[in-house]
Amino acid sequence: MNYNFQDDSLALHTDLYQINMAETYWGDNIHNKNAIFELYFRKLPFGNGYAIFAGLEKIISYLQNFKFSSSDLDYLKEELGYKDEFIQFLSNVKFTGSVRAIQEGELVFGNEPILRIEAPLLEAQLIETALLNIVNYQTLIATKASRIKHIVGNDTLMEFGTRRAQEFDAAIWGARAAYIGGFHATSNVRAGKLFNIPVSGTHAHALVQAYRDEYIAFKKYADRHYNCTFLVDTYDTLKSGVPNAIKVAKELGDKINFAAIRLDSGDLAYLSKEARKMLDQAGFVNTKIVASNDLDEYTILNLKSQGAKIDSWGIGTKLITAYDQPALGAVYKLVSIEDENGKMIDTIKISQNPEKVTTPGLKKLYRIINTVNHHAEADYIALEDEDPGSEEKIKLFHPIHPYISKFVTNFEAKELHHQIFTKGELVYKVPAIKNIQDFAENNLSLLWEEYKRALNPEEYPVDLSQKCWDNKMEKIAEARKKTEEMKNG
Amino acid sequence: MNYNFQDDSLALHTDLYQINMAETYWGDNIHNKNAIFELYFRKLPFGNGYAIFAGLEKIISYLQNFKFSSSDLDYLKEELGYKDEFIQFLSNVKFTGSVRAIQEGELVFGNEPILRIEAPLLEAQLIETALLNIVNYQTLIATKASRIKHIVGNDTLMEFGTRRAQEFDAAIWGARAAYIGGFHATSNVRAGKLFNIPVSGTHAHALVQAYRDEYIAFKKYADRHYNCTFLVDTYDTLKSGVPNAIKVAKELGDKINFAAIRLDSGDLAYLSKEARKMLDQAGFVNTKIVASNDLDEYTILNLKSQGAKIDSWGIGTKLITAYDQPALGAVYKLVSIEDENGKMIDTIKISQNPEKVTTPGLKKLYRIINTVNHHAEADYIALEDEDPGSEEKIKLFHPIHPYISKFVTNFEAKELHHQIFTKGELVYKVPAIKNIQDFAENNLSLLWEEYKRALNPEEYPVDLSQKCWDNKMEKIAEARKKTEEMKNG
Repeated sequence: MNYNFQDDSLALHTDLYQINMAETYWGDNIHNKNAIFELYFRKLPFGNGYAIFAGLEKIISYLQNFKFSSSDLDYLKEELGYKDEFIQFLSNVKFTGSVRAIQEGELVFGNEPILRIEAPLLEAQLIETALLNIVNYQTLIATKASRIKHIVGNDTLMEFGTRRAQEFDAAIWGARAAYIGGFHATSNVRAGKLFNIPVSGTHAHALVQAYRDEYIAFKKYADRHYNCTFLVDTYDTLKSGVPNAIKVAKELGDKINFAAIRLDSGDLAYLSKEARKMLDQAGFVNTKIVASNDLDEYTILNLKSQGAKIDSWGIGTKLITAYDQPALGAVYKLVSIEDENGKMIDTIKISQNPEKVTTPGLKKLYRIINTVNHHAEADYIALEDEDPGSEEKIKLFHPIHPYISKFVTNFEAKELHHQIFTKGELVYKVPAIKNIQDFAENNLSLLWEEYKRALNPEEYPVDLSQKCWDNKMEKIAEARKKTEEMKNG
Repeated sequence: MNYNFQDDSLALHTDLYQINMAETYWGDNIHNKNAIFELYFRKLPFGNGYAIFAGLEKIISYLQNFKFSSSDLDYLKEELGYKDEFIQFLSNVKFTGSVRAIQEGELVFGNEPILRIEAPLLEAQLIETALLNIVNYQTLIATKASRIKHIVGNDTLMEFGTRRAQEFDAAIWGARAAYIGGFHATSNVRAGKLFNIPVSGTHAHALVQAYRDEYIAFKKYADRHYNCTFLVDTYDTLKSGVPNAIKVAKELGDKINFAAIRLDSGDLAYLSKEARKMLDQAGFVNTKIVASNDLDEYTILNLKSQGAKIDSWGIGTKLITAYDQPALGAVYKLVSIEDENGKMIDTIKISQNPEKVTTPGLKKLYRIINTVNHHAEADYIALEDEDPGSEEKIKLFHPIHPYISKFVTNFEAKELHHQIFTKGELVYKVPAIKNIQDFAENNLSLLWEEYKRALNPEEYPVDLSQKCWDNKMEKIAEARKKTEEMKNG
């Protein structure tokens, strides 16, 4: 049991091949070549029409603290056999690059750069795995939360997933991502403390079992807590739980706030309607009904269509694990690298699958917002030296099927990337978490409803500028020529 | 950005309701009542015939270090408004209970106690969430890994999932769980260091792109590494990648070990067969073929049935997220509690769903092994004071459908629980990780093949002793009587 190294760092939280490549670059003395990598995903998760980016706060902390600890270096040397000279070199590596990124809570779509890393090749390579690990999960959960939020409207949403989360980090960072996506609170107290998000929770079945009497248990809970939400399904929801909750609330009167009852099993549509009647008849018209039990946007939609009387939703497993699609496929690709003469050369990765071909070059990302109707028309990827904002009209065309095209006038080209690090120095201030949540909500108001539909939304356009597209075609032609030469001899 | 508390502890890694219940118990002065909780899941994941338990090592560390830090206490007091006296009390809480558990690498089935916690009620309550968070994920991944292992037989298995894992902890603990389930290595270097498991990896597409020439990239890699596995699909696997790999290997001859090529896209069955021919024709008959790209047990089974020539498998997303079922539903239930007179009273939780009714009482767990054929007949749950090993014949019957029954003679009743903590003191030594892996493999050899089939396995029996069953029926009757009384007045 040796995992409690006092100086465990996250520099080794990477794939072994990154270190092997780093060694190759260093051995060949190209490790300091300037390299540009982009991080992006190709396909939106859950069949959703948009994603919500989360992960930047942790990325900042990770990059600021990037350093191999002495136990890391010992391990690389003694267990993995890396040579002294390379270990010596690694001991001084820190992150000295520049990062541009979209902000947390920003809407993001397929094939657009979420982060752009410009750094010495070796550094940019070593950080790939951790960056993907962070973005893939947090963005997935913020997006899932936003989908659920879209279905429940103004109902209260609580994240209850810790016990089913994929280990501890997922529990807390998932709680934070859910908050960004529009949830009101989490049950995880540590997440509340670490990220300053509201926490929520009352009691479990164990309380009722511990007193072996539901009425007594409710009463004991009420002795200690002014705001009472009673969990009513330990024995029998309608025959025992709701009547006991009402009995206690009547007895205690103003001494407590009978805030809610919670249903955690059975037919939530039927039980909530019956419980609502019982509460109303007893005069507790302001007492809310909280529901939980393997809920997601689909079950909620169905419960609502059946007229369930539920005011507040506790979402666990299906949110915290992104149950219907537990991974986002973000990738990290080299798009440009310094050559022998110090000149930047754009690079490409070819694939049999046209969607998987990378887009070369140093690029900027814009959201084209129609200044007449104040909605987003498309996202637009241009080369670094272009300035779409200065143009009177802009041509938008589909990057795989270019014949699908249109011109837009009366637009604002809002640049989505912010400068986060400049040559290793943090130059960005992470907003307060509530502001990130508000930012996400405001961003969504720019999107037409057809992109926000939970099922089969329209595809929001992410287009390349003509120059960017031409550059890509040129690189494809070069790569194909090279392959043909290889084949022919 | 305030999540880097110097004294962040895991005591707050729990649901808020646990703390509210703790406050209630403490306020009512029943917090020190002796309580027995059991942790178990109801349903095996992935439709598999068994699960492999993992998580004990982390649970031990968590319980040993359980303590509210001063920033935890400040948060509870200042942000959540808990009263001084309760905060004062919490500041001295540590885990003083006893734990019995099955060992990591042990086979486990539905409805049997994986852990049995006997502790003061308040302590047992506070640790619930974290214990479930640990067991649910690690057991899920060990089980998924074992399923994959069962399909590949003696091929090499590598865990490559970090970038798609649900945050950092899942990446490293998932790598460890995969190793327990039979994987040979992980790509995550930190997991290698922390848990002493083998690490594996060579280079990525970025190396080829960085040199903008596949042949040069392979050659540069070979300059620094004796064992070479070349990734051959950056441009075109058969036209460029494999020929370049062969060319470099021929040129360098004995200077390198041309260990393998790696395929990461395209039709792996076709490409592996063609690549095998090319390698063999060039004389590299010992060079292996490694495949990766969204693999799981189903794709591997199909590739094998198509005659794919793959020796080694890199498994990422589908393993590390348990993609087809990303959560295990383990629960933690009170089964017995001390009453006012200091007597232990068994408790039950009723449900409309018979499978969800808990089994009351202090219990032991046995594996009934047939001493003639050396295979497991069933798992057997008995009350604490029973001794099934001393009996000549044992009656096994289905706990939901008792008419399904049989008698077994010539058996050994192997007790599966080990003592881990006694009154807060660790009394168990965690085995070396390789021993845990071997233990899992040996345990599997006790199971008949029909329980190990990946698709539609037979259901392995988990039975209650007659006394245990009678006790449960009695508690059900008591609880129903109480509900009827409530309903009638």
